Amino acid sequence: MQNFTHAIPTKLHFGKGVIEKLDESLRPFGKNVLLTYGGGSIKKIGLYDQVMDILSKGGYKVVECGGIEPNPRIESVERGVQLCKEHGINVILAVGGGSTIDCSKAIAAGVYYEGDLWQMVESRHGVLPALPLVDILTLSATGSEYDGGGVISNMKLNKKLGNMYTFPAVSICDPTYTFTVSAYHTAAGTADIISHICEDYFSRTEDSDLADGICETVLKSAIKNLPTALREPDNYSARANLMSISSIACSGIPAYGKRDTCWDCHSMEHELSAYYDITHGVGLAILTPRWMRHILKKDPTCTWRFVRFAKNVWGLDGENETELALAGIQKLEDFFRASGIPMTLTELGIGTEHFEAMAAHANRGGFLAHAFVALTTEDVVEIYKACL
Amino acid sequence: MQNFTHAIPTKLHFGKGVIEKLDESLRPFGKNVLLTYGGGSIKKIGLYDQVMDILSKGGYKVVECGGIEPNPRIESVERGVQLCKEHGINVILAVGGGSTIDCSKAIAAGVYYEGDLWQMVESRHGVLPALPLVDILTLSATGSEYDGGGVISNMKLNKKLGNMYTFPAVSICDPTYTFTVSAYHTAAGTADIISHICEDYFSRTEDSDLADGICETVLKSAIKNLPTALREPDNYSARANLMSISSIACSGIPAYGKRDTCWDCHSMEHELSAYYDITHGVGLAILTPRWMRHILKKDPTCTWRFVRFAKNVWGLDGENETELALAGIQKLEDFFRASGIPMTLTELGIGTEHFEAMAAHANRGGFLAHAFVALTTEDVVEIYKACL
Repeated sequence: MQNFTHAIPTKLHFGKGVIEKLDESLRPFGKNVLLTYGGGSIKKIGLYDQVMDILSKGGYKVVECGGIEPNPRIESVERGVQLCKEHGINVILAVGGGSTIDCSKAIAAGVYYEGDLWQMVESRHGVLPALPLVDILTLSATGSEYDGGGVISNMKLNKKLGNMYTFPAVSICDPTYTFTVSAYHTAAGTADIISHICEDYFSRTEDSDLADGICETVLKSAIKNLPTALREPDNYSARANLMSISSIACSGIPAYGKRDTCWDCHSMEHELSAYYDITHGVGLAILTPRWMRHILKKDPTCTWRFVRFAKNVWGLDGENETELALAGIQKLEDFFRASGIPMTLTELGIGTEHFEAMAAHANRGGFLAHAFVALTTEDVVEIYKACL
Repeated sequence: MQNFTHAIPTKLHFGKGVIEKLDESLRPFGKNVLLTYGGGSIKKIGLYDQVMDILSKGGYKVVECGGIEPNPRIESVERGVQLCKEHGINVILAVGGGSTIDCSKAIAAGVYYEGDLWQMVESRHGVLPALPLVDILTLSATGSEYDGGGVISNMKLNKKLGNMYTFPAVSICDPTYTFTVSAYHTAAGTADIISHICEDYFSRTEDSDLADGICETVLKSAIKNLPTALREPDNYSARANLMSISSIACSGIPAYGKRDTCWDCHSMEHELSAYYDITHGVGLAILTPRWMRHILKKDPTCTWRFVRFAKNVWGLDGENETELALAGIQKLEDFFRASGIPMTLTELGIGTEHFEAMAAHANRGGFLAHAFVALTTEDVVEIYKACL
């Protein structure tokens, strides 16, 4: 077990009707609220009106910053920061999924950042001084409601970069807000959760019982509850389980005491989204089984971990370890496909044209040499090709 | 799944040598430190000298409050509060196990409490205004390093009461400090961890995947690592696993979305400690299997949960559900006994003389009617008798 530091100051209010905590969550911070949201789905489900009603009754002054993109862009961060400065905003209220929350984190930190905001996104730093952030979650996926990170894109530069900004002060997580999430985004969101776990689970550390047990629990819960949520979109139990595992998957607890967790697939996927603006979870679903097969072949000493995955997550068994390992990977790929996720880059209209550049950037600084199985830029190109 | 709120502001530094974080952990709070500790084991292992050296180099002014009892008493809280007030203490540094940390939490809150300190212990309240608290953990057991609660005893009144006080700001968790913990206290501490989990695991809520998976993970890790730690007291991996599960067991995460978690055994054990000053974990180990058999017999509709326990925690299987349930309970009792814990009250010199009064107080206000299987005061007496 390796050393670690764990600290999440976020308060989670979880369950049906917990929006009743909104006023008390905002009140300590002040009355000037920047309300951030995405493409307007919160209006369709009546959440926008409900929020505005609470804010109006509470005497808050609201400035709106809607239209935040699914892969949120630096221009939205800049717009949000400007609104905060112009209107003396005291607290940001993000209503949406991971993209809206990620962007709001960067806005919150951007208000106090001296210098160019893209530089803030690109430079290495930890948690930054920031405006307080409260969020209302509407998608079970990124776990942004329970971590300090965010991912911001610059489409002009074909860059999508994760960084630390700030933790939400309060996250309001009501699974009923995900009842209307489309099958496509429910599946993609669950693929994101599964990927977060796989990034931590596939590690050489053998003795982190708590981390590995939580990883297997989250994976089994995702595998159990996604089909139910797809079949019965308003099944509270399935939606609640997906929401609770989305938060824990990014909490750092599944990585307690682990080494060599480089989040390889996230590095590779960020390039896909940066070049083609695809849905993050879809890119991860496509990449993950191909990455698994590639590293299993490249370094058979990691087979034991795949055997554990096959046995403990998929309930498989067998004599031949390599076959068992491959069977577990196939199960995962089949699961994603059965959930309706397009499982090739070709289906998304993506060809080989940028693979070299994308691979070079995914492995900038030789970063992926520190992964569970060290990857070279050539490996990354091979993995992209296997996704065609 | 039921609604819940989760918030733990504590920063955990976990691993070998993380005492290097001590200075930076205390520094934001000020220079006047109240150093709290127990019977002096921290002196034997050299930790006291190491801490004093860091504090001296950092220019801190240290006031000592040693001798905190294993079941910490109100008199120690009063003494600590008085020292804080006399010396203008800015921050409390607790070095020890759950008792020292619990007592330090009550001291931290007691400094700002107006009125009698025993009244603070007895009255219902949430987290209180408090001095900042940093701790260095030396025993894997209570999880006090990662929650806001504490348990304080009043031996004159035969009362031992849990309550909320404050969360540690920082907990420094170095498993090597537990290498010298005796076999007896290692086993008792692990019994405490197991009990915390059983209090949450045995619930009617069937669909809290994350909570149940974490419970089973913690139980399996305890069962795996305690024998190793007993056999090889300086086995880092075993000690590290026990320490990481002790923190998560009390984090509230194993209770996510669960109802009817009354912590029955803790209520019953607090009476044993209040009357006989026994080791908390030993009392819990004695009570838990007897409580399980009692409720299984009283309400067979809860059998499914015991079957799950037998299968998922102990790897048992069988056709007859009641037999399987009982076999799982027997496994737990055998495990405690094999760990060297005296498994009857008789062995501790405890007879029936106070059972009625203890049961009445454990069930004050009819509190245990809300448990997994509702208990009456008579039930509690029966459970005590089964422990003889």
